[in-house]
Amino acid sequence: MITGHVFIATSLDGFIARDNGDIAWLLERDASGEDHGYDDFIRDIDAIIMGRGTFEAVRDMKPWFYSRPVLVLSATLAEQPVPADLAGKVRFMGKSPQQAMATLEAEGCRRVYVDGGRVIQSFLLEGLISDLVITRVPILLGTGRPLFGPVPHDINLRHMGTRPFPSGLVQSTYTIAR
Amino acid sequence: MITGHVFIATSLDGFIARDNGDIAWLLERDASGEDHGYDDFIRDIDAIIMGRGTFEAVRDMKPWFYSRPVLVLSATLAEQPVPADLAGKVRFMGKSPQQAMATLEAEGCRRVYVDGGRVIQSFLLEGLISDLVITRVPILLGTGRPLFGPVPHDINLRHMGTRPFPSGLVQSTYTIAR
Repeated sequence: MITGHVFIATSLDGFIARDNGDIAWLLERDASGEDHGYDDFIRDIDAIIMGRGTFEAVRDMKPWFYSRPVLVLSATLAEQPVPADLAGKVRFMGKSPQQAMATLEAEGCRRVYVDGGRVIQSFLLEGLISDLVITRVPILLGTGRPLFGPVPHDINLRHMGTRPFPSGLVQSTYTIAR
Repeated sequence: MITGHVFIATSLDGFIARDNGDIAWLLERDASGEDHGYDDFIRDIDAIIMGRGTFEAVRDMKPWFYSRPVLVLSATLAEQPVPADLAGKVRFMGKSPQQAMATLEAEGCRRVYVDGGRVIQSFLLEGLISDLVITRVPILLGTGRPLFGPVPHDINLRHMGTRPFPSGLVQSTYTIAR
């Protein structure tokens, strides 16, 4: 059974990026040499699903950041070729969350890193997220791209653990209560 | 010097109440017999400032919940008499945050509990909040009354400590970085 997993940082007021996509406020506070567990998290991940917004924020990183195959869910991008330098690393697909997960499952994937606010929200709504690791950055941005959005009914979570870091970041892990 | 202090619970997506003011989701999860530190917090508090929304949510509680003088900031209520059963316990004032704090300071107050989303937001904007104790409840509501709102510039916080509780509530304390 394939499962979706979230590993993301937010401001204390719940934003993953400013309105223009800027995450400098996060990178500044993430540069303290602390190990926030990303390497441990990604070790057990078989593939990554993100949306167009996240892809466009990371596409120009040199070298390419991700060590796992990336699937970008976007009807717009699905009509375009993948940039040559990302061939074999990135695929564009105009599929639904369920279709994307079914595709990855058929390819043998078990654990998928789901990244980006809108994609996380849509996967949460479809019941495709198994757990979330949320790292709170001690800053109020006031506005930006929110991690969470509307849900048709309450979603209950189970708190699995919390780790505060000397930098002031606080990381909590939740599973979705069924 | 008088200071403002926040002690509040929010859903994981940052809401302190549903759109209609309902906090049953919070009370259900707060009834586990755990000591979340409210008594310790209120012991050092001289007065409480809240807005009309919070007051209207608590006014019918019998017995009256608050053990400190309550000042309700509301231009609407300021034109009305305080209900007889709350005389001596509650005052209505149509003042600004600074004016309200100056009034309390002149009366000898040092530490003020600032409660309610909009009032907390306006006090934060005016630099009147010294620290915040935020207790995260493991539920996504999707919509409701947010703890935080727009800010004209980033507000940096300093993380002072975090306590997870067996119930799944996670309480973090922040001071405002100057």
